[in-house]
Amino acid sequence: MEYDPRSERHNLARDPVTSLVVPRPIGWITTITQAGLVNLAPYSFFNLVAGHKNPFVMFSSSGRKHSQHNAEASGEFVFNLATFDLRVEMNETSAMVDETISEPEKAGIAMVPSRMVKPPRVALSPIALECKYIQTISVVGSNGNKTANSIVIGEVVNIHIDDSVIVDGMIDIRRIRPIARLGYMDYCVVDDVFTMLRPD
Amino acid sequence: MEYDPRSERHNLARDPVTSLVVPRPIGWITTITQAGLVNLAPYSFFNLVAGHKNPFVMFSSSGRKHSQHNAEASGEFVFNLATFDLRVEMNETSAMVDETISEPEKAGIAMVPSRMVKPPRVALSPIALECKYIQTISVVGSNGNKTANSIVIGEVVNIHIDDSVIVDGMIDIRRIRPIARLGYMDYCVVDDVFTMLRPD
Repeated sequence: MEYDPRSERHNLARDPVTSLVVPRPIGWITTITQAGLVNLAPYSFFNLVAGHKNPFVMFSSSGRKHSQHNAEASGEFVFNLATFDLRVEMNETSAMVDETISEPEKAGIAMVPSRMVKPPRVALSPIALECKYIQTISVVGSNGNKTANSIVIGEVVNIHIDDSVIVDGMIDIRRIRPIARLGYMDYCVVDDVFTMLRPD
Repeated sequence: MEYDPRSERHNLARDPVTSLVVPRPIGWITTITQAGLVNLAPYSFFNLVAGHKNPFVMFSSSGRKHSQHNAEASGEFVFNLATFDLRVEMNETSAMVDETISEPEKAGIAMVPSRMVKPPRVALSPIALECKYIQTISVVGSNGNKTANSIVIGEVVNIHIDDSVIVDGMIDIRRIRPIARLGYMDYCVVDDVFTMLRPD
């Protein structure tokens, strides 16, 4: 089937779009409100946008804007990697709640201080990237209309890696078991890997 | 371990950054050069940035800039979903080649015309998102220096879904078996899913 999502209807039971770009990494983002409350929420329109010695990450916010607002106002956010062991806790933080509610408190998620920024990291997540807010980009359609989505970009200023997931100087993904977002209410877990060398 | 990637060294055998935001979806991007040659290359700093009735995608280009340049000059690109069955062909297109080389020709990848844009889609990929180029964003560090990376954003103007992966009006991910990028030269395949409903 073929359709222009802007002007044509799909003939499917459910909107397929989030099933088509998969699997998406989960940006489990910590921010702090002006009142000092810790906010924690998952974003799957999320990724690295630059790597190695000067990594950056982006997350795209639609509808729920607490993380975006807090990152902009405080200038900081933290990415925590969501793992299979933390799947229930991660899902708890996806509930739409008032900004006066702290998701980690509500879900009983232990947080520990970050090294370079004020938003804390999830204690049991083996990976955290502490970020300084850089800029927000409005996603604007070809008709000039802004969409409900913005892209928030941060520069990574500290990397936390739990020593238990490092084997022979390399990250052992099997000790992390990251989860990722598929379409609908589906997720996958990375349990196994295969390797392909670059062809040159 | 903890380190600031901008100013401190990690003590690992290999740079860990691309192992920390995982799994990353693979944007297998078709563009056309001004001379009319078809370019096809994989990007893992890639994702949806808005969904549903007005989806957008982004890919971040570092070093190799052919896809970015072609998207900017022609105003169009196509995302093809990389599957386990196409893994060898996808990997072939990751070689650094001169812009006068057409990767699909070199790797023997059959292409078919798109509906709304000139860059063709990969015939055997079950999913393609045809995009109109919207804008490029330079990734700029807190020191004001531009990095080697840019974010290219496109608006989805046509969605192709192979009817064989639709079951009861929903996308059956097990019929697609998408692959994704991990760190180092590692990949994973989505073979199985689990479901978690939103908690409210």
